[in-house]
Amino acid sequence: MNITMAHGSGGDATSKLIEEVFKTEFHNEYLDKMEDSSVVPGSGRLSLTTDSFVVQPLFFDGGDIGRLSVCGTVNDILMSGAVPKYLTAACVLEEGLDMDVLKRVVHSMAETAKEAGVSIVTGDTKVIEHKGNKDSEPGIIINTAGVGFLDNSVNMGASCIKEGDVVIISGNIGDHHAAIMKERLGIENRRIKSDNAPLNEMVRGLVDNGVRVHAMRDVTRGGLGTVLNEFASSSSNDIYVIEERLPVSDAVRDFCGLLGLDIMYLGNEGKMVCFVDSEDEERAVNIIRNSKYGENAVTIGYVQKPAAIPCLVLRTSIGGERVVGPLYGEGLPRIC
Amino acid sequence: MNITMAHGSGGDATSKLIEEVFKTEFHNEYLDKMEDSSVVPGSGRLSLTTDSFVVQPLFFDGGDIGRLSVCGTVNDILMSGAVPKYLTAACVLEEGLDMDVLKRVVHSMAETAKEAGVSIVTGDTKVIEHKGNKDSEPGIIINTAGVGFLDNSVNMGASCIKEGDVVIISGNIGDHHAAIMKERLGIENRRIKSDNAPLNEMVRGLVDNGVRVHAMRDVTRGGLGTVLNEFASSSSNDIYVIEERLPVSDAVRDFCGLLGLDIMYLGNEGKMVCFVDSEDEERAVNIIRNSKYGENAVTIGYVQKPAAIPCLVLRTSIGGERVVGPLYGEGLPRIC
Repeated sequence: MNITMAHGSGGDATSKLIEEVFKTEFHNEYLDKMEDSSVVPGSGRLSLTTDSFVVQPLFFDGGDIGRLSVCGTVNDILMSGAVPKYLTAACVLEEGLDMDVLKRVVHSMAETAKEAGVSIVTGDTKVIEHKGNKDSEPGIIINTAGVGFLDNSVNMGASCIKEGDVVIISGNIGDHHAAIMKERLGIENRRIKSDNAPLNEMVRGLVDNGVRVHAMRDVTRGGLGTVLNEFASSSSNDIYVIEERLPVSDAVRDFCGLLGLDIMYLGNEGKMVCFVDSEDEERAVNIIRNSKYGENAVTIGYVQKPAAIPCLVLRTSIGGERVVGPLYGEGLPRIC
Repeated sequence: MNITMAHGSGGDATSKLIEEVFKTEFHNEYLDKMEDSSVVPGSGRLSLTTDSFVVQPLFFDGGDIGRLSVCGTVNDILMSGAVPKYLTAACVLEEGLDMDVLKRVVHSMAETAKEAGVSIVTGDTKVIEHKGNKDSEPGIIINTAGVGFLDNSVNMGASCIKEGDVVIISGNIGDHHAAIMKERLGIENRRIKSDNAPLNEMVRGLVDNGVRVHAMRDVTRGGLGTVLNEFASSSSNDIYVIEERLPVSDAVRDFCGLLGLDIMYLGNEGKMVCFVDSEDEERAVNIIRNSKYGENAVTIGYVQKPAAIPCLVLRTSIGGERVVGPLYGEGLPRIC
């Protein structure tokens, strides 16, 4: 069975679609009321975020757009120091989409939400015409917005970063980007898999154990180079990264070599970078290493007073230093 | 200047786009921090909602996709009895989109947010390839999610509807649907304009004056016929609507006659239907009539114990009664 324009009418076909596909997978006391909005318990401080997901292909080694759409938003909430609680889920479906494809995606969203401890409490479905050429598969665009609760004691962000902080990455970089690229190029390589994952365990481990984390960010579109440039600029510090410490799997390193890709700009969907008080470095690395998805965590750099305009400096393996700018140009479109 | 894939890279071009287009228009203390999520003050009870907007054309008589994307989400929050506070805004742009078109849309979002008393506190931007034929304009899909605060005393919803309640509509129906349709068909008719509007004033007027409102719903996709069917079914009541009381402008009535459209299924974007305790009927109608966008409010029906399966019954102008089902089939795609 395929999605038709009627599924986007707001009428009978829409109700059936929502009832059979979405409610079945996501059901919880809030969503099940099937109102246009959901009323949920609140908190004194909220963290809000949103992300649209347009990745192609919809399914890739290690994940799919459904898992990605939950992880991306959950991780953004986590990075503010908050505990993610509720997600909204809005799907824009292209006419002709195979219902089984939709069901797989929605099931993946439900499983990932369970893993990440969030409830999908409200949603929306629209159908648009399929405009690609006849050979292209009808697609899905998913938006998730997230609400998290933040303790009064938690205070993080670029402005809290200070000289001497160490920069820790939670694991190997480039996996997601390489996984999407290999699918697009039709390269067979089973060792390359997306890292898309919710990072609750490592973040809560750091926060709940009182590690002095000054800022965190998940390293997505634009890669480590772009994220660290943003932090250098917004915190007015130089950030030094030691090239040989960058954790990269052999498979991804080979893949980058082959295609001439710069690992600093590859997107990830299950990695975070955090700025930690240097006294807490060892403890922080250990907590992340002992958490799910964190086994390859390592300190990759440090923060220094800016020599001139705040920038990101890479100390290369041959002993040189080079300033690394943010990503210019397109990178890889539709990576997330 | 046109949107390129680089604007969706997450790198330098994305930052500039966000800085120059979105931050300029939306700026507030939360958004201006430019983190991946926003931390905002909370409340004990939250109302959450989400909607994606795929309307075509992007600009139409009486409104545009930007105004629509704010009104739709604000109204969904209002309908739960909550006060809308924060919006998220996620744009998916098609490559080649004219930057001035984007700026007009974003400006319209900002103006409408101001009117509706909400802050856009976080956002996301993606760029996808433009797949239509060469003559078609690159499009925009906007998702907004909304957070509202709900007093402990407020309790509304289908389950609160009871026998004897009156059904009030806040004004003329069919305007938005007819406005989109006339644009698509290239029909010149200046008297037909979309009703897209935020309904804060009428809703707060009812709630703050203690009118016993049992349920409210904005009458969007699927029209009055679909919305009232949902209420009949979810509240287990019959809902009677008196056909000759339905407020419809002459222009829209003529338009429906010409095209053979059923007014009961036309979508609206600035109209709500509410179920009110019959003792409060006059007060409710007066409050809505005296509020912005409510001058044509009128009681159109009442709630009765179901004779058999709960349904929507139209008492026609010639004295007959007919059961009206929800919308079957497609209605008008990409209406919102």
